[in-house]
Amino acid sequence: MDIANSTVSMAEWNSLIEGHMNDDEPITNLQDGGGGTYDAVFLGGGAAGRFGAAYMKAMGGRPLIIDRWPFLGGTCPHQACVPHHLFSESAALLDRQRWFSDELFFPPFDESRASILDLVNLFRDGRVTAHAFMNWQTKEQLEVEYVVNAPGRALDPHTVEAAGQTFDTRTVVIGLGAHQKPLAVPGYDLPRVFDWATLVEDLDYEPRRCVIVGGSKVAVEYGAFFQAAGCQTTILSRSPLLRTPNLHHVDEDIRRYVVDGMRERGVEIIEGAQLTEIKGSDGAERVIATGPDGETLEFETDFVFNGTGEAPNSAESKKWLGVATGDNDEILVDASMRTSVEDVYAIGDIIGAPMEMFKARKCGMTAARNIMGEPIEFDFSEYPDFLHTTYEMSWVGLSEEEARAAYDHVVVIQMPPKSVDHDDIPLPCAEGTMLYAFAKPGLSGFQKCVIDGESRRILGCHHVGYGAKDAFQYLDYLIHRPEGLTIDEMGQMNELFLNPEHFIQLSRLRGGRKDLVDL
Amino acid sequence: MDIANSTVSMAEWNSLIEGHMNDDEPITNLQDGGGGTYDAVFLGGGAAGRFGAAYMKAMGGRPLIIDRWPFLGGTCPHQACVPHHLFSESAALLDRQRWFSDELFFPPFDESRASILDLVNLFRDGRVTAHAFMNWQTKEQLEVEYVVNAPGRALDPHTVEAAGQTFDTRTVVIGLGAHQKPLAVPGYDLPRVFDWATLVEDLDYEPRRCVIVGGSKVAVEYGAFFQAAGCQTTILSRSPLLRTPNLHHVDEDIRRYVVDGMRERGVEIIEGAQLTEIKGSDGAERVIATGPDGETLEFETDFVFNGTGEAPNSAESKKWLGVATGDNDEILVDASMRTSVEDVYAIGDIIGAPMEMFKARKCGMTAARNIMGEPIEFDFSEYPDFLHTTYEMSWVGLSEEEARAAYDHVVVIQMPPKSVDHDDIPLPCAEGTMLYAFAKPGLSGFQKCVIDGESRRILGCHHVGYGAKDAFQYLDYLIHRPEGLTIDEMGQMNELFLNPEHFIQLSRLRGGRKDLVDL
Repeated sequence: MDIANSTVSMAEWNSLIEGHMNDDEPITNLQDGGGGTYDAVFLGGGAAGRFGAAYMKAMGGRPLIIDRWPFLGGTCPHQACVPHHLFSESAALLDRQRWFSDELFFPPFDESRASILDLVNLFRDGRVTAHAFMNWQTKEQLEVEYVVNAPGRALDPHTVEAAGQTFDTRTVVIGLGAHQKPLAVPGYDLPRVFDWATLVEDLDYEPRRCVIVGGSKVAVEYGAFFQAAGCQTTILSRSPLLRTPNLHHVDEDIRRYVVDGMRERGVEIIEGAQLTEIKGSDGAERVIATGPDGETLEFETDFVFNGTGEAPNSAESKKWLGVATGDNDEILVDASMRTSVEDVYAIGDIIGAPMEMFKARKCGMTAARNIMGEPIEFDFSEYPDFLHTTYEMSWVGLSEEEARAAYDHVVVIQMPPKSVDHDDIPLPCAEGTMLYAFAKPGLSGFQKCVIDGESRRILGCHHVGYGAKDAFQYLDYLIHRPEGLTIDEMGQMNELFLNPEHFIQLSRLRGGRKDLVDL
Repeated sequence: MDIANSTVSMAEWNSLIEGHMNDDEPITNLQDGGGGTYDAVFLGGGAAGRFGAAYMKAMGGRPLIIDRWPFLGGTCPHQACVPHHLFSESAALLDRQRWFSDELFFPPFDESRASILDLVNLFRDGRVTAHAFMNWQTKEQLEVEYVVNAPGRALDPHTVEAAGQTFDTRTVVIGLGAHQKPLAVPGYDLPRVFDWATLVEDLDYEPRRCVIVGGSKVAVEYGAFFQAAGCQTTILSRSPLLRTPNLHHVDEDIRRYVVDGMRERGVEIIEGAQLTEIKGSDGAERVIATGPDGETLEFETDFVFNGTGEAPNSAESKKWLGVATGDNDEILVDASMRTSVEDVYAIGDIIGAPMEMFKARKCGMTAARNIMGEPIEFDFSEYPDFLHTTYEMSWVGLSEEEARAAYDHVVVIQMPPKSVDHDDIPLPCAEGTMLYAFAKPGLSGFQKCVIDGESRRILGCHHVGYGAKDAFQYLDYLIHRPEGLTIDEMGQMNELFLNPEHFIQLSRLRGGRKDLVDL
């Protein structure tokens, strides 16, 4: 189906995508029928490919995106970030409804209304609208050519085949994403062993107990959600929760606050546990693991959630083009996103960790600029990070422990202060934690700012609560710019009171001192 | 009562403050019994005085705070910002409960649970904890001397009297705040004519309808809360809502989104109305006004809320010290916070608009630094701003209209895009708007970034939704620094996806273009 010369409205895209979810008719938006030579063919129209192509087009180049799904945007709006955000917002609301059951304007909590399935269905029914927007925006606003609902195949670095035709191109940019690695135990392939992708595709019953395997973001995020949505959750983690190699800079006080909070809400967390087998006749029903002391653990369950690591989708590219890959199947690239094969670039999750949106998009932009003759490198070793429990947890820069290892005179400003019991103090409070602060102070969050007392520079910021995540994007920029950000500059800023993270005001309370001390 | 040599815990402060709310026994925390000479006596221990004194102490100076209440912190935690935040958070939650009544995990909305009085009581019962923290922190962490529960009186610029003793000082710093101006109509002094201060002190019944007078922040914020809490609300405003002289940079699209949203939620808004009289036998029962076409309007009501402007508490200072004041009774100061009288400074709301927390605190810090011999000026003509409806609305820099008046080539990036119906598009979405995005897209907020196409600098950012307010503190710093912030720098930042304001990612989609265009 050729839409190059039509204006397709949002509503029309909705039905067009719905209609093609289960067929293989390509939808093409091509200039000159795809003739001529492209500057790049982006294999995969997820975040990396879409943003890379958009940037290249904006620079005056000619990109083409090819995606196997009938929509652009990739797994994020289809299975990953967007449902996760919907579920985490629901978890936060359910959590508040539980704590305030039959208090104030909250009715008695009705357990029968808590449902994972309802929210999965809400997501499934609504996700096409986000897909429609991606297709609409990419065509109408960004003016990028694409072929969707058709897998692409690189014949060589200058020829790509899709939808029954071949496209000539100066370069190929691979952005085919990653997938959940299966669990390496017997029973890994039973029905009712879900991951973030299959959960939203396959769940068709209401689970009331589950076992999650993993100890990092996905395990914590989905665990908090399942528990809040009425599903008794057990997390089996080899490492202490959130102390996995792929997460850096997690402050121990912050970690403890969120992990303790999950336990307080009923999540069973077993650290030092090793999954050994999943059993069941029609699907996962029983989980066997080895406990921290070598004991055998058994759990009845309604499903198993695989929250362990992901692996890049690099097999086809390796076969087609011979690109070199690393230990976790990631395509190896330099800081300009060049692979081992000339004129072949790789971007996004397929080049390995961190598998985060900012990296995917900026990889795409970096590849586009290099292909268009604007040499540029992208260093993603430092970045702000976040995860959800029933709170938002955001962090950037060094943890207190990391700072103390690297600096002689570390100063910490935190809320609540170290010397005060949180249950005695309604702080921190601001948007999202006001009711907690007044009725259940210990639930009102936690925050910490880590400072080098010598240079007075802010080394790290850490927050648990609501409403601060967005700010960490700018804190990342400020503390990582060459001149950094001092406590004095922070204290000179104009806060919006009550502000979810109290960093500006607290900096001002200490900033007058030549010899900085904790607060 | 002398506490200088005791450590008073948070719990002890709670009962100490409760016990002294209705007596006039001073509580003193003085070194050397208050002997010697202070660098400054801060009259008023609200935000301005407390932060000024803390900064002076941190610099090595000797400040003394005197406050008539038995606690520090002033009106903010007692009657103003803190209850407002508690009410606005509740309004947002109530609003969501109403929209999702009997959907998903939300039970049928129970109107009988919606209660202004319950929330006022929650605040009244809990506010002492915030007070306790202020007293505790100021003594134990900030080591500032104070006299509370005793009014101070300046005999001259170097002598202040309080609690039956006199204190010698190099300077006096006046930070006595502001008060709501009474309505200038007959019936202004009836019972049940409330303002933000008297509402939390005096409300003792459940109102079911109300009339608000005013068209700026306070009127909009309390109006949104009252309506969400089950009180049918009418707002009488002379100007169009949020088009009052004390609010600058409010973008018209944003204004329309929130005002239309309030109307959609049932708030009756009458612009161009002029209050003429409040009538009633036992208290306010009936409101008479002139409508926009000169017609007479009458309303039955359970209370009247005065949401018009405030006036500085400058009368005593003028009498005592002869400081010069302006048209609205504000104490006139220069950019160093010096009044017309040598060695007398004034800070915070008492120097006039904007009566915002950042200004109060930074005024205090500015006075402290100047008094301590570090000359510094404070320009508060530009700053980020926010208000609540059932959303958070945040803005900084120029509105689109202001930008178009000042620049030839203005580019606008907004969500949803101008050409798409909001009901067709689940954007913007992120923390706080996920459920809306999936179930009721039109309610998912609105955002806009205004850019100068020539310099590529960001001129203004505007957001309605949740979770972006904190970020605007840093956006303010970035766009107002001398070099500003370009769309290219914005597009190079590391976003935390899904981010409540989509400015970084949207900048990146356009940043590749030499000739910037709208998105």
